[in-house]
Amino acid sequence: MDKLLNHTAAHILAYAVKNIYPNVKLAIGPATDSGFYYDFDFPTPIKDDDLPKIEAEMARIIKSDFAVERKEMTRTEANRFLTKNKEIYKVELLQDIAKGEPISFYTIGNFTDLCKGPHVNHIGKIKAFKLTQITGAYWRGSEKNKMLTRIYGVAFAKKSELDEYNAWQEEIKKRDHNKIGRELGFYTSSDLVGQGLPLFMPAGATILRVMQRFVEDEETRRGYLHVKTPSFAKSDLYKVSGHWQHYKDSMFVMGDEVLDEDVRALRPMTCPMHILIYKNDLHSYKELPIRYAETAKQFRNENSGEMHGLIRLREYTLSDGHIVVRPDQIPQVIDECLDLANYMLKVLHMENDVTYRLSKWDPENKEKYIDNKAGWEWSQDEIRKCLVQNKLKFYEADGEAAFYGPKIDIQAKNIYGKEDTLFTIQLDFALAEKFGLTYIDENGKKAKPYIIHRSSMGCYERTLAMLIEKTMGALPLWLSPTQVRVMSITNAQDEYCDQVKAELLAAGFRADSDLRNEKIGLKIRETTMKKIPYLVIVGAKEQTAGTIAVRTREGQDLGTMTVVDLVSRLTQVVKEFN
Amino acid sequence: MDKLLNHTAAHILAYAVKNIYPNVKLAIGPATDSGFYYDFDFPTPIKDDDLPKIEAEMARIIKSDFAVERKEMTRTEANRFLTKNKEIYKVELLQDIAKGEPISFYTIGNFTDLCKGPHVNHIGKIKAFKLTQITGAYWRGSEKNKMLTRIYGVAFAKKSELDEYNAWQEEIKKRDHNKIGRELGFYTSSDLVGQGLPLFMPAGATILRVMQRFVEDEETRRGYLHVKTPSFAKSDLYKVSGHWQHYKDSMFVMGDEVLDEDVRALRPMTCPMHILIYKNDLHSYKELPIRYAETAKQFRNENSGEMHGLIRLREYTLSDGHIVVRPDQIPQVIDECLDLANYMLKVLHMENDVTYRLSKWDPENKEKYIDNKAGWEWSQDEIRKCLVQNKLKFYEADGEAAFYGPKIDIQAKNIYGKEDTLFTIQLDFALAEKFGLTYIDENGKKAKPYIIHRSSMGCYERTLAMLIEKTMGALPLWLSPTQVRVMSITNAQDEYCDQVKAELLAAGFRADSDLRNEKIGLKIRETTMKKIPYLVIVGAKEQTAGTIAVRTREGQDLGTMTVVDLVSRLTQVVKEFN
Repeated sequence: MDKLLNHTAAHILAYAVKNIYPNVKLAIGPATDSGFYYDFDFPTPIKDDDLPKIEAEMARIIKSDFAVERKEMTRTEANRFLTKNKEIYKVELLQDIAKGEPISFYTIGNFTDLCKGPHVNHIGKIKAFKLTQITGAYWRGSEKNKMLTRIYGVAFAKKSELDEYNAWQEEIKKRDHNKIGRELGFYTSSDLVGQGLPLFMPAGATILRVMQRFVEDEETRRGYLHVKTPSFAKSDLYKVSGHWQHYKDSMFVMGDEVLDEDVRALRPMTCPMHILIYKNDLHSYKELPIRYAETAKQFRNENSGEMHGLIRLREYTLSDGHIVVRPDQIPQVIDECLDLANYMLKVLHMENDVTYRLSKWDPENKEKYIDNKAGWEWSQDEIRKCLVQNKLKFYEADGEAAFYGPKIDIQAKNIYGKEDTLFTIQLDFALAEKFGLTYIDENGKKAKPYIIHRSSMGCYERTLAMLIEKTMGALPLWLSPTQVRVMSITNAQDEYCDQVKAELLAAGFRADSDLRNEKIGLKIRETTMKKIPYLVIVGAKEQTAGTIAVRTREGQDLGTMTVVDLVSRLTQVVKEFN
Repeated sequence: MDKLLNHTAAHILAYAVKNIYPNVKLAIGPATDSGFYYDFDFPTPIKDDDLPKIEAEMARIIKSDFAVERKEMTRTEANRFLTKNKEIYKVELLQDIAKGEPISFYTIGNFTDLCKGPHVNHIGKIKAFKLTQITGAYWRGSEKNKMLTRIYGVAFAKKSELDEYNAWQEEIKKRDHNKIGRELGFYTSSDLVGQGLPLFMPAGATILRVMQRFVEDEETRRGYLHVKTPSFAKSDLYKVSGHWQHYKDSMFVMGDEVLDEDVRALRPMTCPMHILIYKNDLHSYKELPIRYAETAKQFRNENSGEMHGLIRLREYTLSDGHIVVRPDQIPQVIDECLDLANYMLKVLHMENDVTYRLSKWDPENKEKYIDNKAGWEWSQDEIRKCLVQNKLKFYEADGEAAFYGPKIDIQAKNIYGKEDTLFTIQLDFALAEKFGLTYIDENGKKAKPYIIHRSSMGCYERTLAMLIEKTMGALPLWLSPTQVRVMSITNAQDEYCDQVKAELLAAGFRADSDLRNEKIGLKIRETTMKKIPYLVIVGAKEQTAGTIAVRTREGQDLGTMTVVDLVSRLTQVVKEFN
């Protein structure tokens, strides 16, 4: 996005709105990563229907190709000007400008607005624009203040860019997991339950269960020991781990530290619990590495603005794991974690959709990070070496580490272009010490282990969201909630349909049937809309021959075959995670 | 337990303690279901070591065979008597006796105690007794008061009863799941996490995972649709369901109703969530019954005194289910739930360990129960009919229903003789209405469904506790965390051992190996102690012949066989849930 252009477009929006609604009060109007917005205090609220009128007025203004002129005022002049115009919000903003800072105004035609700038030099540079949305927004973002009206838009230097933008918006609509996921009956939500807490319906819960069993079996094969630990604990636990000091704002807390004997909190992570399990026994150096894993519900008190669909939730399911290692085992175990992550990326066919990030601490942020410079530098070097040795392209980011150590984040972008962490591998130099973990070394002495935190399939809900956006809901066979739908052409085949379905179920596939007295065309269309991968169609001919006609949701006709043929084809497809 | 006898024994305990520690102050000393206790305020604390001395003094007193004599005093006389003896706690108790009530004292020898009675008429009737435990106990049960010393004991009219009691205590020690479960490494706990929140270690988590997969697969076969819903919700949800009004004291609440915008609570049950999932779509009468199931974490704020091992927890895993039915489907669906429950009892070999209870409301308890007499009577009749038609022996209990409807509780006793609900089937006449659930009936009109709540394997943790107590930790093969241990006689067989283990793993069994350079006798002993069902022993002879020697944890020698033989034997045993 061209920020200068969009910033100027925000002023033109305000100019147009002022022309149409002279009594409106202006608040703020910045450019953003995805366009611009302006917040207004309308005497009477406006609606989506009013946008075309505003767009027309903006177009009329842009045609004049006014220059954008900057001038400075003294504080007294500025105050007099804004007060005369009854711009009460601007008067407040003026007070925020520090003494000595310039107080600048930008003028377009006969519209002058308090603004730091910068802008394009004449408005004719805006060749295309669009108003996209009206929402509410609190003045200064605080729920204590008045709710204003925010109008969003986007502006371009070329007409073709708007066309591209529109095409992209159409694509987003088609791929938005929050739309597709609900349409396919994967999940729903409710105001009674609250934001960030999806209710997974049978289809969605099936996907999550298949993922969970797959991950747990793969982890078992790789030597992980699964544990099962509580969803909450006394604050005492998080005080030892440091979550209370560094992470409390993101936690759901039960009870009051002053009034209640016990204060508890929903777990933000499972590490302290897994550490207690390690601590329950004595361990010899021969036993390490010990790999604990848990398919764990975790909780994070996200702000309401942060949440979208399944990407960020207040409760989510993490394939979490903690490996207790000797110092000499760190490179080997990080390699093995990278191998697991890469295997999972292959299984999900997402190898090419990710970037690797080395997430480091921010030495200035004492509140967020444990204060141990040597620890941070040593551990950051350790994982940088692993990334280099694995010949992975990566970038480094400050202030993105966990509070207890740096991490390798495997990042994926959602369709809106927002990057999120899909999988993570973290080297923790702090928690083992905080909990006094030890192992008995070769000489019979107590030694300090390290902890590697890792996810294998990441947060299930987020991974599912990414998969839906990638496949537009046409999940691979192994993850499809219903894998095969058997349908009859007439009711004379109902019994044969049931038999075919039973054979598919017995072979371990998720099959259902559509025996409604409806046209086969309708049945096929509905099944395809539901993104069910395989359609089995059975008429009199197939019944007589003991065969089935098979087609795919993509519309490919696989011809006539036996159920045994289909089972062997499906088995192969599942094996390839296709 | 003979209550009169035990009550008298409590007085003798106080008499003996007074003789030995003249400055002790007496609090209360009742008989209980399991014996008696007396609370004392000792000037200096006593220890377990002091009990034999007190027992000896009690025996000396009992030998005198004093009569137990009752006399009444006026309030003034009683007050003067207790004050003179410096019995400050008794003076406080005296004030609790209502005006007009008799104020009675009981005298044994030269020991007189304020007491309501009744007692045996002479103390020689106590033929055997035992002091069992010292604990702390707050005066009047309140943490605000002083911590006193409670001495527990038990008394009998026959010497043989004490022998039986001792034998039973030995048996309890052998069977206590909270001892065995920890010894076998199934779970641990931590003061940092808090009471009622076990941390399942790898062995225990494996058992729970096997149970969960088994239950979910069986439920799928029976037409259940699994869902996955949030662990907490806004209080708004529970206000609609009625949990807030009838169940709030047992809930974990986050936030303050006055201070916070959103108040949330950990879910005490999943019903409101499953109801929302039903409500997400329109449903025709043809679709019903719809069977939702979820292996769900649930939360109950138990008092600390209520919890023991895995029997009662603050967070537990329920195989929960809710079936939305038309009124005409109620008997059929209750039958199907009973069938599932009975199948699970057979799988667990617990058919003979349970009793059936029809749990009804208490019309007097307006706080606990929804106030709808007709609804209660109708629904209680419905499930009583089902119990009768299934020819099940059952008893009826008032005040044991859920707040929304009556239930069939399948009850089991733990080794301490305490009864708990293992499985439950509940007929709910209230929640569908509260949430405005409907279905479209044959005439295209909206009709009101009912909801049947049921568990299939109950609360996993409690079921596991019962199984441990029943089997003394020797769980059936299908549930054993490690099913086979392969061990070498000398390190020359290590490679062959690994090969055998790999074959067992490939066949889907949980196998490990013991290749330590230790005597085979020690390895066998340790494996037997760990209750691992099958032991594979491999020496030079077996290696050469490509066979294995197999024995069971019970010490049975199954002789020499091939791995294929063992796999087919294990497969059969698992199939029979043995």
